[in-house]
Amino acid sequence: MPILVMKFGGTSVATLDRIRRAAKRVGVEVAKGYDVIVIVSAMSGETNKLVGFVEETSPLFDAREYDAVVSSGENVTAGLMALTLQEMDVPARSWQGWQVPLKTTSAHSAARIVEIPNENILQKFGEGMKVAVVAGFQGISAEGRITTLGRGGSDTTAVAFAAAFGAERCDIYTDVDGVYTTDPRICEKARKLDKIAFEEMLELASLGAKVLQTRSVELAMRYKVRLRVLSSFEEPSDEAGTLVCDEEEIMELNVVSGVAYSRDEAKMTLVSVADRPGIASAIFSPLSEAGIQVDMIVQNISEDGRTDMTFSCPTNQVARAEQALNEAKDAGGINFHELIADTGVAKVSVVGIGMRSHTGVAAKMFEVLAREGVNIKVITTSEIKISVLIDRKYMELAVQALHDAFELEKAA
Amino acid sequence: MPILVMKFGGTSVATLDRIRRAAKRVGVEVAKGYDVIVIVSAMSGETNKLVGFVEETSPLFDAREYDAVVSSGENVTAGLMALTLQEMDVPARSWQGWQVPLKTTSAHSAARIVEIPNENILQKFGEGMKVAVVAGFQGISAEGRITTLGRGGSDTTAVAFAAAFGAERCDIYTDVDGVYTTDPRICEKARKLDKIAFEEMLELASLGAKVLQTRSVELAMRYKVRLRVLSSFEEPSDEAGTLVCDEEEIMELNVVSGVAYSRDEAKMTLVSVADRPGIASAIFSPLSEAGIQVDMIVQNISEDGRTDMTFSCPTNQVARAEQALNEAKDAGGINFHELIADTGVAKVSVVGIGMRSHTGVAAKMFEVLAREGVNIKVITTSEIKISVLIDRKYMELAVQALHDAFELEKAA
Repeated sequence: MPILVMKFGGTSVATLDRIRRAAKRVGVEVAKGYDVIVIVSAMSGETNKLVGFVEETSPLFDAREYDAVVSSGENVTAGLMALTLQEMDVPARSWQGWQVPLKTTSAHSAARIVEIPNENILQKFGEGMKVAVVAGFQGISAEGRITTLGRGGSDTTAVAFAAAFGAERCDIYTDVDGVYTTDPRICEKARKLDKIAFEEMLELASLGAKVLQTRSVELAMRYKVRLRVLSSFEEPSDEAGTLVCDEEEIMELNVVSGVAYSRDEAKMTLVSVADRPGIASAIFSPLSEAGIQVDMIVQNISEDGRTDMTFSCPTNQVARAEQALNEAKDAGGINFHELIADTGVAKVSVVGIGMRSHTGVAAKMFEVLAREGVNIKVITTSEIKISVLIDRKYMELAVQALHDAFELEKAA
Repeated sequence: MPILVMKFGGTSVATLDRIRRAAKRVGVEVAKGYDVIVIVSAMSGETNKLVGFVEETSPLFDAREYDAVVSSGENVTAGLMALTLQEMDVPARSWQGWQVPLKTTSAHSAARIVEIPNENILQKFGEGMKVAVVAGFQGISAEGRITTLGRGGSDTTAVAFAAAFGAERCDIYTDVDGVYTTDPRICEKARKLDKIAFEEMLELASLGAKVLQTRSVELAMRYKVRLRVLSSFEEPSDEAGTLVCDEEEIMELNVVSGVAYSRDEAKMTLVSVADRPGIASAIFSPLSEAGIQVDMIVQNISEDGRTDMTFSCPTNQVARAEQALNEAKDAGGINFHELIADTGVAKVSVVGIGMRSHTGVAAKMFEVLAREGVNIKVITTSEIKISVLIDRKYMELAVQALHDAFELEKAA
């Protein structure tokens, strides 16, 4: 039998009714002839409650105990999902991470998957079981302790299972109905994409399109696991959702597939830094040690041995970044005249695999923004992405103008 | 190091504050030099919530999935308790049933403990860990599935650990401060007992004194595990609570240790049953098959080949008992003129190991009840217990009169 992996997030299993609805979807796939592996999250709110308990009990908690506590929400959903399927006469049973066993590193709360032996579950499929329900987000360390995979761990579990079992596809059920050319809340012409390439999805995910966690897309790309993102609140159909797949599966690659944005950006400028070899390292090492997620970095042309260094980071890390840089300055590691934080900016990006072969995308983007009177503060580019930092008040205007200019409302 | 087992029930770990309070008690015992094994229940209300989820999902649920779901509440408390102890600088870690591993039979939801290997935890004690926090009520079957031990499972877990580790004592923390001569709510002279023998506790437990589950007392008696019942809401002291122990540890055995009662009794009489060999079996087999918990049984003297048969059972099982007996009559298995159910009765019992060597306890009990004008409907006796069924309206009067007559307000 071909194997299908289906993953249901917290909102898709938030109540017993929703678990029933999800189970019906599973039943539809079983009826089509699939052996199904279902990965479940905790009922929404449960994990936050448990995390709250742990943090209130012990601010600097032992991550091994954190994992033991926090993983219990998924166990509840897994059992309830198996029971629901049994009620529908679908042969099913639940597995907790340690029962598979899903082997991970010992990096508690942020463990990485090492191995998923498939004999145990394949044997049960051979005996007539149709659905293996697996508690997502958790595994077991070599020491026999329970581990959790950290943020996005359930998506990652699903993709890893799809890889380990050679599944035909990995369907991620969530509360949105697919991947859009941009956020429909700020651009009414936004269009759902039928297909998108792994690389594009990766750029969109890292740019803040919260449909899939970066880590699960990376894993899917590495093992060529076809991912489908779809809503558990819509009627099921074969065309539902968006397929995230290898670019070879996409007939007509878009020059630009989507416009992404991130509101939560701050621009920081070190004015008049003494320019010497190793200065970038002297600036960014202390930031990295302080856990600052630096995104864009721009260095101006040097004049008289001094330069300006600009970078962006999430708004809520500005205070910490300032502290780290001032401490480095006091310690003599770096020297600058002034540190300016601009928290009124946003990042807008256009993403598309077709950029590799099409020139002129950047030029067109800058022209569109100029025509709208939007001043660009920082630019960075990758092979399939161009990002700009602009004043936050122009963000929606910029997204809409770019969406129009690249004609994203039309299918390729 | 001597080992102590401490068990905290659901109300004793109902909130993070209460878990902290319980952890402080554990810290006191660690300071005295004990290595401590803590057995925890789920935070009160959690298990009922999970049972509710399962029953709503699947009325005839797969007990293996029930166990997987329902056991998760204890896992949460175990992790939180370990974290709380760590915050107090007491070296501690949590164990889930499968990690110990606490091996059980495969009778899901009502599993029996098969073995508790102690090497794993003893090794950690040897390495300097002071407290092993174990999730109660759960284990693992030979098939690698999670099992639960059924009602009173956490008390049973605690006693079994005490036996497996040769613990000096097993302290059961609950919401009452010990075992009383009778229920203080209906007899203000009720006195807390300092010590009580296993056999007496067993009779009191089976009579509805809800301090300890019968099963855990049986296990303690078999392995001579000294049990102390005490309140987690009182200040700790060495004299707190009641010690349940071997009678040899009790200097002066009481003739009568306590007066127990059960309000929830019904008396059922089959009038004029054809008396023949095998008739008792013909009556009680169908009742047993219908799951009726028959308690007292009395058969009157036979006249003209017919007799009356009277038995008692819980009030809420009367309808089911009537149905089972009428079906047996229709099937020709038994023959009776009438079936009379009296749901207005109660059971009152006096219990005491001293009865073995003191005669006249029964006579005194009947005399006291007669003096108070209480009519006795059914009598049964065991070596250390006399029970009577009386009209429920006299129940409190009977308990108080018997408590006075046997001078239970005075220490032995």
